[in-house]
Amino acid sequence: MKKINTSPLSGTQELLPEQQAIFNSLKQNIANTYAHHGYLSIETPIIDRSEILFAKAGGDTEKQIYKVIKTTESADSADQALRFDHTVPLARYVVEHENNLTFPFKVTQINRNFRGERAQKGRFREFYQCDVDIIGRGELKIAYDADVIITLLDALKTFNLKTPILARVSNRKILTGLIESMNLTDKSKDIYSIIDHSEKVAPETTEKSFHEIGLTEEEVAKMLKFISIHGTKNTVITALRALNVDNPTFSQGVDELDYVLSLVESTVDPSELSADMTIVRGLDYYTGTVFEFILPEYKQIGSICGGGRYENLTQYFTDQPFPGVGGSIGLTRLFYVLKEYQLIPTTTDNLLDYSIIPITSNEFSAAFDLAKKLQTANHTATVVLTDKKLGDKLSYAAKLAKNGIVIGESEVKTGAYKVKDFTSGEEKELTI
Amino acid sequence: MKKINTSPLSGTQELLPEQQAIFNSLKQNIANTYAHHGYLSIETPIIDRSEILFAKAGGDTEKQIYKVIKTTESADSADQALRFDHTVPLARYVVEHENNLTFPFKVTQINRNFRGERAQKGRFREFYQCDVDIIGRGELKIAYDADVIITLLDALKTFNLKTPILARVSNRKILTGLIESMNLTDKSKDIYSIIDHSEKVAPETTEKSFHEIGLTEEEVAKMLKFISIHGTKNTVITALRALNVDNPTFSQGVDELDYVLSLVESTVDPSELSADMTIVRGLDYYTGTVFEFILPEYKQIGSICGGGRYENLTQYFTDQPFPGVGGSIGLTRLFYVLKEYQLIPTTTDNLLDYSIIPITSNEFSAAFDLAKKLQTANHTATVVLTDKKLGDKLSYAAKLAKNGIVIGESEVKTGAYKVKDFTSGEEKELTI
Repeated sequence: MKKINTSPLSGTQELLPEQQAIFNSLKQNIANTYAHHGYLSIETPIIDRSEILFAKAGGDTEKQIYKVIKTTESADSADQALRFDHTVPLARYVVEHENNLTFPFKVTQINRNFRGERAQKGRFREFYQCDVDIIGRGELKIAYDADVIITLLDALKTFNLKTPILARVSNRKILTGLIESMNLTDKSKDIYSIIDHSEKVAPETTEKSFHEIGLTEEEVAKMLKFISIHGTKNTVITALRALNVDNPTFSQGVDELDYVLSLVESTVDPSELSADMTIVRGLDYYTGTVFEFILPEYKQIGSICGGGRYENLTQYFTDQPFPGVGGSIGLTRLFYVLKEYQLIPTTTDNLLDYSIIPITSNEFSAAFDLAKKLQTANHTATVVLTDKKLGDKLSYAAKLAKNGIVIGESEVKTGAYKVKDFTSGEEKELTI
Repeated sequence: MKKINTSPLSGTQELLPEQQAIFNSLKQNIANTYAHHGYLSIETPIIDRSEILFAKAGGDTEKQIYKVIKTTESADSADQALRFDHTVPLARYVVEHENNLTFPFKVTQINRNFRGERAQKGRFREFYQCDVDIIGRGELKIAYDADVIITLLDALKTFNLKTPILARVSNRKILTGLIESMNLTDKSKDIYSIIDHSEKVAPETTEKSFHEIGLTEEEVAKMLKFISIHGTKNTVITALRALNVDNPTFSQGVDELDYVLSLVESTVDPSELSADMTIVRGLDYYTGTVFEFILPEYKQIGSICGGGRYENLTQYFTDQPFPGVGGSIGLTRLFYVLKEYQLIPTTTDNLLDYSIIPITSNEFSAAFDLAKKLQTANHTATVVLTDKKLGDKLSYAAKLAKNGIVIGESEVKTGAYKVKDFTSGEEKELTI
């Protein structure tokens, strides 16, 4: 009888081995794709100084940070916390190790982060993020934005989802320039926020929100027209230029968007790619390219990957500029929703290649020896060491592995083993 | 100029990409070995209920546990902490998911744990542990102890250390039985502790310590003789039986040790294996087999792996018995000391297969396209998108990759690419 509540904490992921195997394989696919694209793996500590983690945080994030305290000697650890993303530790890493890194620095971090969010279905407090970033010293060419988008799309395509993925791209300079040209810079933050939420609310709500922050009828109409612009590269670029906005930031944003999309199209099918003026990304550190990926047939899932360009990765830690571009796949949440919508297998057999079943303990040594030979030949193999009846051993063995090898006195003597395929029941001679 | 201290917290591991690559490959080798031996991967949350984590802890461990507190809404998270090992969360996992697991349950966890130890060289507060465990429901045959030892040895042998590894094995029933037979059960804890420390102090200190806890001259002599027993299986078993200890626990321990070692010898060379009566393992939850691996030519490193048999994995969480056997490689510390003693490469080139160098931005699309082809053929490839002079681009490219492919107008036109080996300077046609 249980003496205590043994469920994992709400907001954490704990999987059965079969599901863990699926999760691990998705994670491995992402890691392999990032590596193939030339991103170097690093790991930053999960615990970091609060002054580092709180330097940028602000707002909701700051409220969600977990502080850590040792049960004794708390004095020396009072200023420590759990990282809430990979970006802040990366900024610290780049400043700390600058002289030992080659710039532009293409880097990946795949690990757990922590946020004390309100617990709710599909929201995690402890979650994997799979990040890629490219950091320049002093400057970083816009073309690198395309590298990040291409890499993240390739990573997600390894999931073989059987539903299309759509990359939606914008550039924050376009909206910033538009706002400047309309003399609304003092309302900039509100406008960003309204657009950021516009897809989650009814169109009338967005319209009402624009009115509420004091935009004129004409300004509201202009904004609504602007955020309705989306589609293929050429459609969108043409529509944006047709707005005749006389502002250098706006024009630069349109040019950058045009350029980045044309580079992404070098390897990505245009049907997987769109420009979309509703994409602004909430976090205010993005300064140029911004993007989000969705599954158009499952819009309710929302963004499955996001990122963008930031001019000031390290601004809180050093005076030297390190511009960067990056993106992240929130794998724990993504895994959860993909299972919900049955877009990935919800279970797998996760079976070993071989169970080896010694009939008596006299054959244990021979069984270990055979397992070793199979393992050396790159097979997975386990030895059944229980002392149950043979029938029970076989039924246990069949739960673990695709094939069984029974070892008795005669097999040990002759060294000839029979392999039984547990699914088909077929038997044949073992050859390693 | 730096505005803030950007060094990682003391007691955490933060590596440059070249070293991270070595660390990752050792970790991957361990994971592959565990998988080949049939251990199923699971991940438990890093944050868990304090009542779970503190249930077993006690003593020094309890003092080292990191509590976590959210900066706001701390009320609902006041009872949470960071796990200090994989064993306690595993016990919770087994009780929670019992009905969905197949027993004996061979399981592995490879992840970070946290202990607020006093900071000192080579001591980590945040560290990887690579665990294997086999959990039985109700009972677990002793033969499984051999499976764990064989697996851990195989995992460490993938490091190709060029110095031998020695597995030192004992069984706690032997010492327990000896103590019972000498009517010293009330001094049991002290005796265990003295023996556990005996290798770290001078022999006279051990002798003195035995005297200090009130052992007679004769008892001290008997203990010293006992702990001096080590060597090959047959030597040790013979020496132990020659002690003529009339105690059933002692005899059972000797038999179990004999049996486990004989099974390990099925696949392990006897030179890699010893029985050693100084091995007791500090943690008091071990009840039978105990083992530690060392590098005999580098004794100062101490134990590089340890584990043993425990009869009561889940005793704090349920009345139902789940006996188990397990062991752990403390990879972060091990990696640190192996580097210190130069037993693994301290650096590696960590180079990609290909850098692709477009001469102008006109060739960026062709470069992305070529990268994609190489990546699809399982090569690592990156595109150099800086707008430096060609010489500077080439020197950057050579820092990243073994080979370079320069793309100009004519290459794009003909589709014929030359690969330059950056080490030899040789050039040849690219074939994918």
